[in-house]
Amino acid sequence: MDEEVKLHGFWPSNYVYKVIWALKLKGIKYEYIEEDLSNKSDLLLKYNPVYQKVPVLVHGGKPVPESSVILEYIEDTWPQPYPLFPEDAFDRAMARFWINFGNEKGLVFYSFFKAGQGQKEEAAKQVLEVLKTLEEHGLGSKKFFGGESINAVDLSFGFLPYWFECIEEVLGIKVIESTSLPRLHSWLENFKEEPLIKENCPDGEKLLGHMKKVRASFRVD
Amino acid sequence: MDEEVKLHGFWPSNYVYKVIWALKLKGIKYEYIEEDLSNKSDLLLKYNPVYQKVPVLVHGGKPVPESSVILEYIEDTWPQPYPLFPEDAFDRAMARFWINFGNEKGLVFYSFFKAGQGQKEEAAKQVLEVLKTLEEHGLGSKKFFGGESINAVDLSFGFLPYWFECIEEVLGIKVIESTSLPRLHSWLENFKEEPLIKENCPDGEKLLGHMKKVRASFRVD
Repeated sequence: MDEEVKLHGFWPSNYVYKVIWALKLKGIKYEYIEEDLSNKSDLLLKYNPVYQKVPVLVHGGKPVPESSVILEYIEDTWPQPYPLFPEDAFDRAMARFWINFGNEKGLVFYSFFKAGQGQKEEAAKQVLEVLKTLEEHGLGSKKFFGGESINAVDLSFGFLPYWFECIEEVLGIKVIESTSLPRLHSWLENFKEEPLIKENCPDGEKLLGHMKKVRASFRVD
Repeated sequence: MDEEVKLHGFWPSNYVYKVIWALKLKGIKYEYIEEDLSNKSDLLLKYNPVYQKVPVLVHGGKPVPESSVILEYIEDTWPQPYPLFPEDAFDRAMARFWINFGNEKGLVFYSFFKAGQGQKEEAAKQVLEVLKTLEEHGLGSKKFFGGESINAVDLSFGFLPYWFECIEEVLGIKVIESTSLPRLHSWLENFKEEPLIKENCPDGEKLLGHMKKVRASFRVD
């Protein structure tokens, strides 16, 4: 009872899915609690007073906020089965490097999503530049960032399928193509084909509808 | 020979000092290599092609860039003596949470440093807000973020003494005072009094001169 695992989430959040995938990969049972972000629960405000955001993982009554921190917590607490980080210290450092890279470049993706008609092409170029760096230095010739199987880095870039594809559709610009980013494009297809990911992803039409609403709320077009 | 430790740094960089302090706390011998950032060495470009920045720690020929990643690598590789992170998984998650908080809020401090005459007061208010959150939720009533002794979180906020104090002096605005942030102010004094920190810090006058030059290069006054 004391070791209960609960996840406070919001269905269209890619950050929440990072945690859902990690828990599923580890085979950890948890209770999912959907938050209404327009009317945040007292529990969420208590659990994450600094950011007041999902996801928050609550384990044995103790709240851990922020998806990157949660992935490390899950790994520290349940190292087996299915390690999310490489065992070798250097490889582990490189995994953290690319996770931080993704976090740091979040603004570039957000700027693309928010770009007005006249800025869309330039914003897309900046996203492409980030993804080229990720492809060349991060992914290389591997199937997954984790090698033959997905790890925490793959989960961290799990917003590229589904979420980023919705943004591309809403804006009418395709950035990740087999011509522009061949290896990242293959990664994206491989990632979506992983049974565990396939079985645990947001409904495509519903997510697209949500992303269209968010885009409309920016009032930039 | 194969396990040689080298640190590529730049003397006024607070990110480099995070790593120097961590290595000293662990008692790890290393060779320090000063980089000329106006004429970066081929080695630095090879070791950190993504950011082309210091610090880079090179261990047995393998380069680890980025100060937060390096602290984790040092902990993973040399867990003893002097653990930099708490042993308990929850406390470790909270340490990572505050380190990420510091990284995420870096722009607020940078905006203060770059603020023009008319924006200085507003920028200082935003820094104060960040530091109040850090004081209330992060430091609490502890002597150090690490409790009775300094840990990776303390090192990560090690830019507040020296570097941020120089910025305050250059801008003529004091943000961290015993009246505005009593507990963080005490932390700052305690941190500076730690023998290992005291013995390994940049020369105050030289750092102030450097920070004045950087501020002048912004051409905002």
